Amino acid sequence: MKVKRERWSSNFSEWYDWVLSEAEIYDYGRYPVKGVGIWRPYGFKIREKLLELVRRELNQTGHEEVLFPLLIPEELIKKETEHIKGFENEVLWVTKGGESETDTRMALRPTSEVAISYMESLWLKSYKQLPKKYYQIVSIFRYETKATRPLIRLREVTTFKEAHTIHLTYDDAERQVMEAVEIYRKIFDMLGIPYIISRRPDWDKFPGAEYTIAFETLMPDLKTLQIGTVHHLGQKFTKALDVKIQAEDGSLVYPHQTSYGLSDRVISALISIHGDDHGPILHPLIAPIKVVIIPIPSVNNQKETLNIIEHCKRVKDELGKNDVDATIDEDTELTPGEKFYKWELKGVPLRVEIGPRELNSNTVYIKRRDTLEGKSIQFEELVVEVTRTLTEIGLYLKERGEKFLKEHIFKAENLEEAKKALNEGKGIVEVHWCNDNKCGLKLEEITGGQVKGVPFEKREVNGSCVVCGKTATNILRIAKTY
Amino acid sequence: MKVKRERWSSNFSEWYDWVLSEAEIYDYGRYPVKGVGIWRPYGFKIREKLLELVRRELNQTGHEEVLFPLLIPEELIKKETEHIKGFENEVLWVTKGGESETDTRMALRPTSEVAISYMESLWLKSYKQLPKKYYQIVSIFRYETKATRPLIRLREVTTFKEAHTIHLTYDDAERQVMEAVEIYRKIFDMLGIPYIISRRPDWDKFPGAEYTIAFETLMPDLKTLQIGTVHHLGQKFTKALDVKIQAEDGSLVYPHQTSYGLSDRVISALISIHGDDHGPILHPLIAPIKVVIIPIPSVNNQKETLNIIEHCKRVKDELGKNDVDATIDEDTELTPGEKFYKWELKGVPLRVEIGPRELNSNTVYIKRRDTLEGKSIQFEELVVEVTRTLTEIGLYLKERGEKFLKEHIFKAENLEEAKKALNEGKGIVEVHWCNDNKCGLKLEEITGGQVKGVPFEKREVNGSCVVCGKTATNILRIAKTY
Repeated sequence: MKVKRERWSSNFSEWYDWVLSEAEIYDYGRYPVKGVGIWRPYGFKIREKLLELVRRELNQTGHEEVLFPLLIPEELIKKETEHIKGFENEVLWVTKGGESETDTRMALRPTSEVAISYMESLWLKSYKQLPKKYYQIVSIFRYETKATRPLIRLREVTTFKEAHTIHLTYDDAERQVMEAVEIYRKIFDMLGIPYIISRRPDWDKFPGAEYTIAFETLMPDLKTLQIGTVHHLGQKFTKALDVKIQAEDGSLVYPHQTSYGLSDRVISALISIHGDDHGPILHPLIAPIKVVIIPIPSVNNQKETLNIIEHCKRVKDELGKNDVDATIDEDTELTPGEKFYKWELKGVPLRVEIGPRELNSNTVYIKRRDTLEGKSIQFEELVVEVTRTLTEIGLYLKERGEKFLKEHIFKAENLEEAKKALNEGKGIVEVHWCNDNKCGLKLEEITGGQVKGVPFEKREVNGSCVVCGKTATNILRIAKTY
Repeated sequence: MKVKRERWSSNFSEWYDWVLSEAEIYDYGRYPVKGVGIWRPYGFKIREKLLELVRRELNQTGHEEVLFPLLIPEELIKKETEHIKGFENEVLWVTKGGESETDTRMALRPTSEVAISYMESLWLKSYKQLPKKYYQIVSIFRYETKATRPLIRLREVTTFKEAHTIHLTYDDAERQVMEAVEIYRKIFDMLGIPYIISRRPDWDKFPGAEYTIAFETLMPDLKTLQIGTVHHLGQKFTKALDVKIQAEDGSLVYPHQTSYGLSDRVISALISIHGDDHGPILHPLIAPIKVVIIPIPSVNNQKETLNIIEHCKRVKDELGKNDVDATIDEDTELTPGEKFYKWELKGVPLRVEIGPRELNSNTVYIKRRDTLEGKSIQFEELVVEVTRTLTEIGLYLKERGEKFLKEHIFKAENLEEAKKALNEGKGIVEVHWCNDNKCGLKLEEITGGQVKGVPFEKREVNGSCVVCGKTATNILRIAKTY
């Protein structure tokens, strides 16, 4: 069987909705509030696996998990004016308790910089306490007026991992930005999610930030999806919230901060990028079930069928002992073929089939979800082969993902080419740029794309700005985007 | 040193605030919204340990974790009238998005029966899908107008574990109520939290429920704290939300539901009940750090001090290899005495002290946080002794807790005795009762206590109602309560 990715690429939007619904991951569009969804048990487990991995990386690098209140009073959120302006049309407000007005309007957090800075002003007194790296994993709320999309553009983002760090100097904070970029690189690399890293243009940075670094991936429909951002906040919030620290020389100074976030979009990317016409292919690192075992009953020998079930149990136990989560599908109402379909749609990375032939030869038949290739192995090789194959699946997904992204980065020599490439859906377009914001904005206007920023990694630049023709000092990325 | 519990018992309220703040568990009363608090890193870890344990018990009994939206539209929440009446004065409403009114008012979930039942009406079609047991761990919101208390009475309850199950028949649901009671028993037993189980009087059951079973513990100030509830919901919500299931005979029927919850109050109970004048004593099962190792530096031999640190590291490694979380306090600015104080206040169950004497005799000195007893042990015995002692600490806390509760259940023969016992703070008062609600309400009125209900476990009853004098058919519990 050949891997087909036709529906996946040419009708991605429909494919995506089908997967979320039919694989019972995330129920969307039926609950009577716009832009919110329900994590169903299978989807919740995928989400948990991802969060375990994210928590491990953050805890290992000295981040401490906390939990702040959902509600931010209007007076507090308005302390940083540039920040609130970036959000004010999107904030949901609680104004009533029972039938009476609340004392003050309270925002459902759109993000927690002000709340955390406020508490830091109480917790932190001395440079000796720095740096501090906090994070929390919470729901955030945006009153999106644009079209919402499940896990991509939501009014309730249920999986917002926001990290907030505080440092004595600008440079310390900058080093933290670099650490955050490395942590995100590592997470996306582990999950095989391909990405580009860009420094956002000034007009698109996080409200209040000195600068913003963003991770983008490319979805099957060749629109980019922002999957992670890292902000250097400088002293914006410490000054606004009056967070003062005693420095080594006794003077009081405003410390510097960073913040960085991941969201439900990482799960959206995981499901979308590693997919084919049969459904998603869950990366073994976040698959709630790594191996599904399907008994193929004997046609007219009940005793043999019972022995097959026993053989399946031995396989499950043997895998379980070696920390490979396996499950047997013992449903008697579905045919093996129906089970194959079901578990491919669930994205389980590896399938084990056991029928009379396998029983009698003490073998198992294993089939990879990614390449759809199968082979017979001896029972004795089970653990070694399964473990090795799961690793290979992870690597295959990563390579295929990276190849897909690389093939869809297009270097345009002039405005015409850039516009054409964007309209023909070639992916991410890179052009030469003079570094003038006016030219960047004009590029958006002319091509109808959205500027994603300049490459995070230094590049040699040799050409002239596609807008004004002056000598280029940088590369600028532009794309159609979610 | 003798264990002192004077401040703990006679000035519990102050003790409690001191512990939450000074042990850096939960920051309360400083964030500018009434009735909400912040889980600080240490407190967050305690909360995580508890949730791990709760999740394990629920997953093992076939419960599936899900995540529902925070917002419930007014139209939906009003579908079950009895239910909304129980909550309507306490609901927080979102009415604005940006500067415009939202299409409909949306409640911050006070609990999720209606939201979950609504989705069940879409997900469940056949009796073959039943039973289903869902749960989620989320923030819930109540616009409390009474005095709020950290982790006890909050406007944002951040650790609400709500389970929702659905069954074909009333009896199936009743069996689920029994399973839930057993699960909660097991959890509280493991944590050494003493409890009584009561069936709530009709006037105090969950709005919409057929009946409510509640777990209560007794706080150091002899007020009861409700720490868990289990509700048989019958068909109230399935009828209101039109959840219909095809039964085996093909007919459409309304299934029966249960719901049961735990909250932040379990953590409040854990911290409060297992406490003394030095602070809380964390039960080893939920202690983020099970063992703290304190080096006692040599007075004037730096090399020896370095060797002591090395010895500490060997102890930590040895414990780590055996899954005992240990940490070394290497702070050089605090004296050993200051460190003892600090870690006792943090409630770490076991302390290891290592000084010149221990170094030279290849021993360690271990000190229990519960009894404050210490002893020297050989390094070779370390793992066995530490593991055994941690188990003993758990048992000691459980026994002491149960004894405390037992000593504070008072059987009153008449109204006068009941009133006196309540006013003198004797704890939980049990009286004979005729089963007439009027007498129950009158008991509250006369004594100033709150009726908690009748014992869940069957009791022999032999006496007459303390209110009306008729033959009693049951025992009724009354107490001062949080």
